[in-house]
Amino acid sequence: MTEFSSRSAGSGRHFLQVPGPTNVPDRVLAAMSMPTIDHRGPKFAELALDLIPRVRGLFNASGPVAMYPGSASGAWEAGIVNTLSPGDRVLMFDSGMFATLWRGVAERFGLEIELVECDWRKGVEPDRVESALRADRPQRLKSVMVVHNETSTGITNSIAGMRAAMDAAGHPALLMVDAVSSAGSMEYLQDDWGVDVTIAGSQKGLMLPPGLSLNVISEKAFAAGAGAASHRSYWSWADALPSNDTGYFPYTPPTNLLYGLKEALAMMEEEGLANVYARHSRLAEATRRAVEVWGVENFCVIPEKSSDSVTTVLVPEGIDADDVRAVILDRFDMSLGTGLGPLTGKVFRIGHLGHFNELMLAGTLSGVEMGLEISGISGCSGGVTAALEYLAGQAH
Amino acid sequence: MTEFSSRSAGSGRHFLQVPGPTNVPDRVLAAMSMPTIDHRGPKFAELALDLIPRVRGLFNASGPVAMYPGSASGAWEAGIVNTLSPGDRVLMFDSGMFATLWRGVAERFGLEIELVECDWRKGVEPDRVESALRADRPQRLKSVMVVHNETSTGITNSIAGMRAAMDAAGHPALLMVDAVSSAGSMEYLQDDWGVDVTIAGSQKGLMLPPGLSLNVISEKAFAAGAGAASHRSYWSWADALPSNDTGYFPYTPPTNLLYGLKEALAMMEEEGLANVYARHSRLAEATRRAVEVWGVENFCVIPEKSSDSVTTVLVPEGIDADDVRAVILDRFDMSLGTGLGPLTGKVFRIGHLGHFNELMLAGTLSGVEMGLEISGISGCSGGVTAALEYLAGQAH
Amino acid sequence: MTEFSSRSAGSGRHFLQVPGPTNVPDRVLAAMSMPTIDHRGPKFAELALDLIPRVRGLFNASGPVAMYPGSASGAWEAGIVNTLSPGDRVLMFDSGMFATLWRGVAERFGLEIELVECDWRKGVEPDRVESALRADRPQRLKSVMVVHNETSTGITNSIAGMRAAMDAAGHPALLMVDAVSSAGSMEYLQDDWGVDVTIAGSQKGLMLPPGLSLNVISEKAFAAGAGAASHRSYWSWADALPSNDTGYFPYTPPTNLLYGLKEALAMMEEEGLANVYARHSRLAEATRRAVEVWGVENFCVIPEKSSDSVTTVLVPEGIDADDVRAVILDRFDMSLGTGLGPLTGKVFRIGHLGHFNELMLAGTLSGVEMGLEISGISGCSGGVTAALEYLAGQAH
Amino acid sequence: MTEFSSRSAGSGRHFLQVPGPTNVPDRVLAAMSMPTIDHRGPKFAELALDLIPRVRGLFNASGPVAMYPGSASGAWEAGIVNTLSPGDRVLMFDSGMFATLWRGVAERFGLEIELVECDWRKGVEPDRVESALRADRPQRLKSVMVVHNETSTGITNSIAGMRAAMDAAGHPALLMVDAVSSAGSMEYLQDDWGVDVTIAGSQKGLMLPPGLSLNVISEKAFAAGAGAASHRSYWSWADALPSNDTGYFPYTPPTNLLYGLKEALAMMEEEGLANVYARHSRLAEATRRAVEVWGVENFCVIPEKSSDSVTTVLVPEGIDADDVRAVILDRFDMSLGTGLGPLTGKVFRIGHLGHFNELMLAGTLSGVEMGLEISGISGCSGGVTAALEYLAGQAH
Repeated sequence: MTEFSSRSAGSGRHFLQVPGPTNVPDRVLAAMSMPTIDHRGPKFAELALDLIPRVRGLFNASGPVAMYPGSASGAWEAGIVNTLSPGDRVLMFDSGMFATLWRGVAERFGLEIELVECDWRKGVEPDRVESALRADRPQRLKSVMVVHNETSTGITNSIAGMRAAMDAAGHPALLMVDAVSSAGSMEYLQDDWGVDVTIAGSQKGLMLPPGLSLNVISEKAFAAGAGAASHRSYWSWADALPSNDTGYFPYTPPTNLLYGLKEALAMMEEEGLANVYARHSRLAEATRRAVEVWGVENFCVIPEKSSDSVTTVLVPEGIDADDVRAVILDRFDMSLGTGLGPLTGKVFRIGHLGHFNELMLAGTLSGVEMGLEISGISGCSGGVTAALEYLAGQAH
Repeated sequence: MTEFSSRSAGSGRHFLQVPGPTNVPDRVLAAMSMPTIDHRGPKFAELALDLIPRVRGLFNASGPVAMYPGSASGAWEAGIVNTLSPGDRVLMFDSGMFATLWRGVAERFGLEIELVECDWRKGVEPDRVESALRADRPQRLKSVMVVHNETSTGITNSIAGMRAAMDAAGHPALLMVDAVSSAGSMEYLQDDWGVDVTIAGSQKGLMLPPGLSLNVISEKAFAAGAGAASHRSYWSWADALPSNDTGYFPYTPPTNLLYGLKEALAMMEEEGLANVYARHSRLAEATRRAVEVWGVENFCVIPEKSSDSVTTVLVPEGIDADDVRAVILDRFDMSLGTGLGPLTGKVFRIGHLGHFNELMLAGTLSGVEMGLEISGISGCSGGVTAALEYLAGQAH
Repeated sequence: MTEFSSRSAGSGRHFLQVPGPTNVPDRVLAAMSMPTIDHRGPKFAELALDLIPRVRGLFNASGPVAMYPGSASGAWEAGIVNTLSPGDRVLMFDSGMFATLWRGVAERFGLEIELVECDWRKGVEPDRVESALRADRPQRLKSVMVVHNETSTGITNSIAGMRAAMDAAGHPALLMVDAVSSAGSMEYLQDDWGVDVTIAGSQKGLMLPPGLSLNVISEKAFAAGAGAASHRSYWSWADALPSNDTGYFPYTPPTNLLYGLKEALAMMEEEGLANVYARHSRLAEATRRAVEVWGVENFCVIPEKSSDSVTTVLVPEGIDADDVRAVILDRFDMSLGTGLGPLTGKVFRIGHLGHFNELMLAGTLSGVEMGLEISGISGCSGGVTAALEYLAGQAH
Repeated sequence: MTEFSSRSAGSGRHFLQVPGPTNVPDRVLAAMSMPTIDHRGPKFAELALDLIPRVRGLFNASGPVAMYPGSASGAWEAGIVNTLSPGDRVLMFDSGMFATLWRGVAERFGLEIELVECDWRKGVEPDRVESALRADRPQRLKSVMVVHNETSTGITNSIAGMRAAMDAAGHPALLMVDAVSSAGSMEYLQDDWGVDVTIAGSQKGLMLPPGLSLNVISEKAFAAGAGAASHRSYWSWADALPSNDTGYFPYTPPTNLLYGLKEALAMMEEEGLANVYARHSRLAEATRRAVEVWGVENFCVIPEKSSDSVTTVLVPEGIDADDVRAVILDRFDMSLGTGLGPLTGKVFRIGHLGHFNELMLAGTLSGVEMGLEISGISGCSGGVTAALEYLAGQAH
């Protein structure tokens, strides 16, 4: 068999602790290895029609869902081209690297961006949103576009807070949310929060390989599309949404990923969504306790905004975080997330999301602790112990 | 285990004989079930850098390759937005349903289409191309866009003929070719034929599940992109092509499908590409011999254009081809391709491509023969026998 | 990936049409690829305790079941060493190669064998049984040992007839039955037929890979074991049977094969056992109709004893059946069963059991028909057509 | 998909840390999911003939190999019935539970056992062997039967020492060695140590699911079989050994497990056997360092005999080790080995063998540390830290 491991020689499982793609459960991989079926046959429609409402349920949404063969970057593009026209003005945030990349997509489609500067270590501050919206007297802003969980910084922004700010400002803009690294890991209330377009992908909390992305859409967003002049075909909601009723896609769907999605949703439902989220929260807290002990910093400086799916770790000056990562990959066969953009070399990121549990986390933190020690960061012993003491004390 | 079969109760393997997705080999499915790896780690780059030249080799191309998480419809879009601007004029052909769908994409991106009418039972006639190009004195046509193997009609158009026509007319337009249902099933000579953009997908001759699509690109096409005003982000070649040198993608790649591609290419290389193509040709000929005996018609009326990957079968007046398909699915657990667009109800399609051999074909043709008989089409016995006699006589 | 195909180069699925091992369903293979669990943990007991009654149900038996990691040959041995002592006299039948091999096992364990000669083309005749038992005035015969479905000859012996003969003779011997190639393919009524020990294995009608075998046991047989002097350890029922109540095995069980068994039983239950048996019967009849047309003979000369799981085909004098098999393997990637023992070179065997359906059979028969033609057997055309005509006419 | 996990609800991978079955690598599971092939066809022989010498290599042996569908208990039986006769006298050791179980098999086959009492916490002392053999003036002892690595106690006995003792005593008995939990985890020198029969199984260091077992045989042992009066059929070497030359088995082989064996051997060869053994040694030492810190004892009291594949942990008086195991299974989804026989409730066992690495071990030890703490064992913190400090300091 072709070897797809992460180092040349070694034994045991690779620890894939980047903040996505995540460790895919065997059950999901096995489901995905079933033979592809005819996407125009009756069994395919059964499959799709079973999935759509369960996806809605995951997002606590009542609107339509567009599922795409494609990465989440495509779902960003889909959100834009289906609701906006070149020249439309939108509110975006300089809150991290994925916010920046999303802004890049918006720029390419000719949007005019009003950018709210943020401290990357603090994330989006809702009062800044409110004041920006109030300042937009002519209500030219067509959309507010915010990342729920910023994978580069390990910060979770409050979408409820965004909605409150928009309501306080009485602004009718659409609310678009990137939930790529929160979906399936944190509670998400599309309807309650008044989210108009949610962007998500398969390869993080949803526990699938990459290749499936989606939009969860409000009626308001769909209606906005009627007047949107952006060219669109592959990402067209008008083409995709009939699938919600018929079970058929406008072009060949990623059938085997849909098998995987069915199995992943079943696993989440068996565990119970509340338990899934509590588990993410518990494991994240254990990670933060280890970070506190090690001679490094949590990049997120606002404790209540610390992400439950990823922790971004700031290494001391003089240490290259990528060297730490390389040591850990080489010695302990674990992949950690690299620092992105301006954070290159300054941070590494620990993914603790998806198909994950206490002992996988303990192995993960152990690898980090040893890697920090080998990298000469002083006083890093004891982090794992702190995490274990916390975890041992948590009933669940 | 969740059941993903094509009928409610039954035994044995489903025969997936639509002209794609095709029967995925166990080796490919097993490769795809290996754990996802970090797409920013060194092993991923090794994987991608191994694949790129082998994909080029499959198309006999020397230019860059863009691989996308997405369906082939996206690769159509990619070809357009990377080379053309809204308002550009292109030459397209009314040669079948996929040509029609592609035209729809072109229209959505604001292209002005000069359409060459064709007889769907005859496909594209190169002399019509030459005359159309000669008529374009100001050389406003920016691109000639043709389907190599029209999956809806079972007709293979000559790309060498297209090139000859373009050369004869001395026209500098780009040549874009949809090779979705020919790639991996028929010899394809990108460089020799002077193809500028090839569009292909994973789920047909490449023997993978759907979800990966690609462009194989000439330098001329890439250069054309510099001045192309179409908005693009997800499909941007400028973003994608550095992967040819670095092995890294601009966004999360479909890692497990790339595992599958590696295995599928290995299988094709083990068999030998010439043998792969000869096998497709042999099995297609056997299919046509069965069709001749049954009381039905090959939709393609020009024998040398009959496709080696799919045969479109025209049923007698008064019979609904979808009823025949339904009988075959219900009784014999085989999926055949439906008639598309204007051919709905008039034809069904037999896919004989990908991971396929004599006895799978014999089972396939047997299912058709029994289904025709049950559907009351007279005199359909003997088709399988004719196919077997042909196959038994073919050394290989 | 390591290549485990049956020929060096080629495409498409191998047709594994030996009469076992059979084509394992993807669902079963996927179930077997789940991680091995602790065989002393609570989840293992749940698994085993779920399986035992379902296995009993398959055999319509009420007694205990011993499941072994091992081939069916071991389950022969188990039946002997748990009920008999060296020097015990048993009634066996010269009815085919597996009967002969079983006799060899009996001899090695010191049994004294009274052999009933049979015509291999006719199988066991119950009246011969009755007369043999009546002749045993002192009732020294401890066991009657008969093969239900003789895999070498394609003949199914009537176990109801055996029981009737034993009852008519008023003989108290145990009745041991080899159901290796009937289990899961034909109705089997252990209690009604008064069978004391049934021997079966995983790799035929049960649709699993080889490696699991079993005994289904009557109380009478278990009681006989108390006085049986044969040495036994691995196969000891006394050690194995507590598993029926506790779910735990006396030594490490074949956990992943048990996963497969659970899935295979689920598949049979979904289809419905009556449907499973009707399918085997239907596909066997189609095979026999093809054989009648080809210029070869069904080895079984008593039509009502023709096996529903395997057809043994006698080739004309002057043809080596193994040459025919070699041609078919080489040209069409299909494995057929070889002639065993005295039948070497004279017959080949077509397995039509397990995970199998009409189109798989059509492919199988097509491969045979082409192989016969290539081998120069005259007049073999038309067999497939006869089979298809029969199948098309069968409602199901 | 049927759920085969070890607890009812939860996420992440189960930690299967019993000392076998071990965590099966994905590559092995994928290889085993390939379709079963004809065991009488040419490709099967290729597979088997490739495996035999590689198995020999693993044991540094030059003699024949018998591979069985069956558990290792069967390979014990095979060693006995192929070399000995009822009434033969053998030397065995009361050194642990598996030695005891093996003795049970020997008794059932009528062997007369001379038992050397041992301290289970110290294992077999070679000088006791020498004196026992010297005492056997008439050289009636036919075989010395010793467990290499006693899985119940975590003690590795020196086979070189056994050979030296036998040579010193000038005794011609056979040397039979149970290597079930050492094979693939520790260097094994069959020829150098003069081992006559080695017993091994698939589900420990060989990284396969259970169901395959084997004997590696010396010429002397094979010759002994000629005069051995034990009844044998399934386990008969005379039947099995021709497979070493032909590649064919006397009955249906466990084909898919052989696929797995091929992949597992490839993995071990890629890592390098010396590296495999060094890794086991390193991870075992780390485990012992954790045990030293926790308020528990290593059951093995002779440091140089501590096993590299399993550590048996003695819990303090008043604590039921099975309660500790239950807590760990329930809270942290990890299976540990139970105490066997007289050790029930007094010890638990940590398997650290097979497909295993530093971070899997760290997770394992973390689960134990938390479980001990929850169980109220005082002062158990710091064990993981000690292990990590050791591991971080080990270059490899």
